[in-house]
Amino acid sequence: MASTIVFFSVKKTAQTTTRRCLKGLAHSPSVSLLPGGRWSSRGTGVRFMSQGTAAGRSRRGALALSAAAAVTAATAVAGFLANADHFPRAEMATSVPQTAEEKKNKKDDEDEGDIVERCRDFMSVPVTDIKVLQERKQEMSTKMEMLIMETQAEFCKALQEVDGGTFKVDRWDRKEGGGGISCVMQDGKVFEKAGVNVSVVFGNLTEEAAKQMRSRGKVLKGKDGKLPFCAMGVSSVIHPKNPHIPTVHFNYRYFEIEEADGTKQWWFGGGTDLTPVYIDKEDAHHFHKTLKEACDQHHPQYYPDFKKWCDRYFFVRHRGETRGIGGIFFDDLDSPNQEQVFKFVKSCARTVVPCYLPIVYKHLSDSFTAEEKDWQQVRRGRYVEFNLVYDRGVKFGLATPGSRIESILMSLPLTARWEYMHEPPKGSREAEMLEVLRNPKEWV
Amino acid sequence: MASTIVFFSVKKTAQTTTRRCLKGLAHSPSVSLLPGGRWSSRGTGVRFMSQGTAAGRSRRGALALSAAAAVTAATAVAGFLANADHFPRAEMATSVPQTAEEKKNKKDDEDEGDIVERCRDFMSVPVTDIKVLQERKQEMSTKMEMLIMETQAEFCKALQEVDGGTFKVDRWDRKEGGGGISCVMQDGKVFEKAGVNVSVVFGNLTEEAAKQMRSRGKVLKGKDGKLPFCAMGVSSVIHPKNPHIPTVHFNYRYFEIEEADGTKQWWFGGGTDLTPVYIDKEDAHHFHKTLKEACDQHHPQYYPDFKKWCDRYFFVRHRGETRGIGGIFFDDLDSPNQEQVFKFVKSCARTVVPCYLPIVYKHLSDSFTAEEKDWQQVRRGRYVEFNLVYDRGVKFGLATPGSRIESILMSLPLTARWEYMHEPPKGSREAEMLEVLRNPKEWV
Repeated sequence: MASTIVFFSVKKTAQTTTRRCLKGLAHSPSVSLLPGGRWSSRGTGVRFMSQGTAAGRSRRGALALSAAAAVTAATAVAGFLANADHFPRAEMATSVPQTAEEKKNKKDDEDEGDIVERCRDFMSVPVTDIKVLQERKQEMSTKMEMLIMETQAEFCKALQEVDGGTFKVDRWDRKEGGGGISCVMQDGKVFEKAGVNVSVVFGNLTEEAAKQMRSRGKVLKGKDGKLPFCAMGVSSVIHPKNPHIPTVHFNYRYFEIEEADGTKQWWFGGGTDLTPVYIDKEDAHHFHKTLKEACDQHHPQYYPDFKKWCDRYFFVRHRGETRGIGGIFFDDLDSPNQEQVFKFVKSCARTVVPCYLPIVYKHLSDSFTAEEKDWQQVRRGRYVEFNLVYDRGVKFGLATPGSRIESILMSLPLTARWEYMHEPPKGSREAEMLEVLRNPKEWV
Repeated sequence: MASTIVFFSVKKTAQTTTRRCLKGLAHSPSVSLLPGGRWSSRGTGVRFMSQGTAAGRSRRGALALSAAAAVTAATAVAGFLANADHFPRAEMATSVPQTAEEKKNKKDDEDEGDIVERCRDFMSVPVTDIKVLQERKQEMSTKMEMLIMETQAEFCKALQEVDGGTFKVDRWDRKEGGGGISCVMQDGKVFEKAGVNVSVVFGNLTEEAAKQMRSRGKVLKGKDGKLPFCAMGVSSVIHPKNPHIPTVHFNYRYFEIEEADGTKQWWFGGGTDLTPVYIDKEDAHHFHKTLKEACDQHHPQYYPDFKKWCDRYFFVRHRGETRGIGGIFFDDLDSPNQEQVFKFVKSCARTVVPCYLPIVYKHLSDSFTAEEKDWQQVRRGRYVEFNLVYDRGVKFGLATPGSRIESILMSLPLTARWEYMHEPPKGSREAEMLEVLRNPKEWV
């Protein structure tokens, strides 16, 4: 059996990709921008509404899906977040798109500003050629690529500031189409391993990916068995050294698929969740409250529904424990419309720093014992169990030829431990943590 | 979503189970031995030949199956091996069943001796009541249960002798039927984690298990969707502290399934494989040669075929690497007949100590650097990746309600490490190891 995995060479050059994303074709002034384009515009008009199934079309339906993860084809990805100083919480509070529909386009323009200018602050040149981004400024794929790049840069900078270390930046290409930017800081002063990843990929959906999506209720009609797709996302996992600083994870992604008749399906997915080693109620409250406030700007049901979904998804079934204390998780979100969902995703992305950094700073100088470090290592083992056994993104990535394995497995901690029959003494802080993982709580 | 996993309480009492294994019914003098028996003898005659499909019936067919693992339902198990002093290599050489058919039964009796006497040396009383074992002495399920208990005891004793530590013995019951004995030594002088596990389980095959078996080519016709089964096995994973002592794994198992018409299918599976951190050609040669000699006593194709199967099975696909330097692996073995296959499995089981212990003793006092320990930890990470992502026994066990999770995950190392983009320098001993893992070698 020969390996079907291709290891990409990592390039740190300024080489960029001409993105061949689905909607680009309807708006681009000229096809000359798309050399060797595999994507062809089959319909004359490009519909921005999803053609999904009941589950895909209605938010409530999507919510009803059981722990149906998501994870874009090749969103082996991640990295992100807006620094609180740059994106103060007050900004979120002013954005209430449901009731301010008319302000939408204006606000977007304000946010996005000049593409070239914004790119200067990124960790690397974007995956898509800047010229192409400029020409397709109004397209969702461009808006999302800019958001994920921005998110990566702001989060990395916030982490560098607290750690004192520097992220290693790897820009990589995907042979089948697209590429990504992986930022990793390993064995820093504060962080044992911090990974922030962006990927923008396109191509034809593999059989495996289509199957996974259909199992979530999507109806996908390919032409000659082919389903062109474009997926992008930012994701991150941060494992600190100090057991009193929790691990955080987030991922925000956007997906487009073109069906045989030329219609497109699109959706957003994502979430942010916290995995502490010990329960700190104040931290848990702060984290969830910050997420809730971001959600509440967009829909009163978002936080309660996505909080539950998060607890369901990050569940280590064989242990009967959640991975951490949750946060929010959603997928297949495609209503009320693309702009509104994007606004929501943007709010979420910009909430990562204010969710997490205050907790990091609070515990920065906490002292800890060898026993506490040990318990952290045991919890890290459970983290590995979840990621390798259940996480659909990881499973999908590992099964997809051409995936960048190092970016997918970046989420694993530097060190982990498995003790046979480990059981914390009754009444201990370790037992208190387990109790919460076995019976998820409401924190707000 | 509620947890479907039941955590069993561990019992160290002398409580035993009245095994309700399939063939017992045809031979047991009285059904009074089977209180509350779920198993009923549907046929009048019990056939000992497998009713498998082409793949199941022919050894060649079985070999042709791609990395189709195996792993009995609930052989979340393992532990084993005969100490070289008790089972000298010369013994194996005298056993050539293919050409000495007539000696078979006589030899069996010699080997097995008195049940009560043999049980005295075990790590715990067997799962099945000793009285039941005595009454069903000639049955394959009894012979196999005695072999796996013996294997566990001999291997544990050999490891205790070299380490100086003592195994923790946990006897556990499985609510759905059967139980097991887990022996674990953690953080010893020589061994970081050593687990030797026995399980003897019965009940009705879950949908998931039946599906997995059918995917390997088995035709299973249940009655009212039910397929009574009995499975038993011994398995073990030993992770030493010194990076110059390799990790070893083995597993030998026996499976019976009763179909709707009362006919039974049975088969054996198993294997032994080595996972060094550094290549030592002498060790590799010794390990494979010892296995080859055991195989050659039974069939000239066993070693070459099972060696290849092992390389195919223990393959970390996403890394393009084998887990270690292999050994042998086989499954669905049910020809030429039950006695012959059992003899072969016995030879394999008794080869574990002579395969492994000489290597342990040889490197016992090897000095090592922090860098070598680090590389060991990175390799441990890959071991975890294989076990959680690909190993069918682990996947099956984690998905099976009532599995004893601690026994399944006993195979994970105490500590492991994931370094982003770890790549050993060209020409280093680490690179030499990787080269072998990427291109499996012939060692004999």
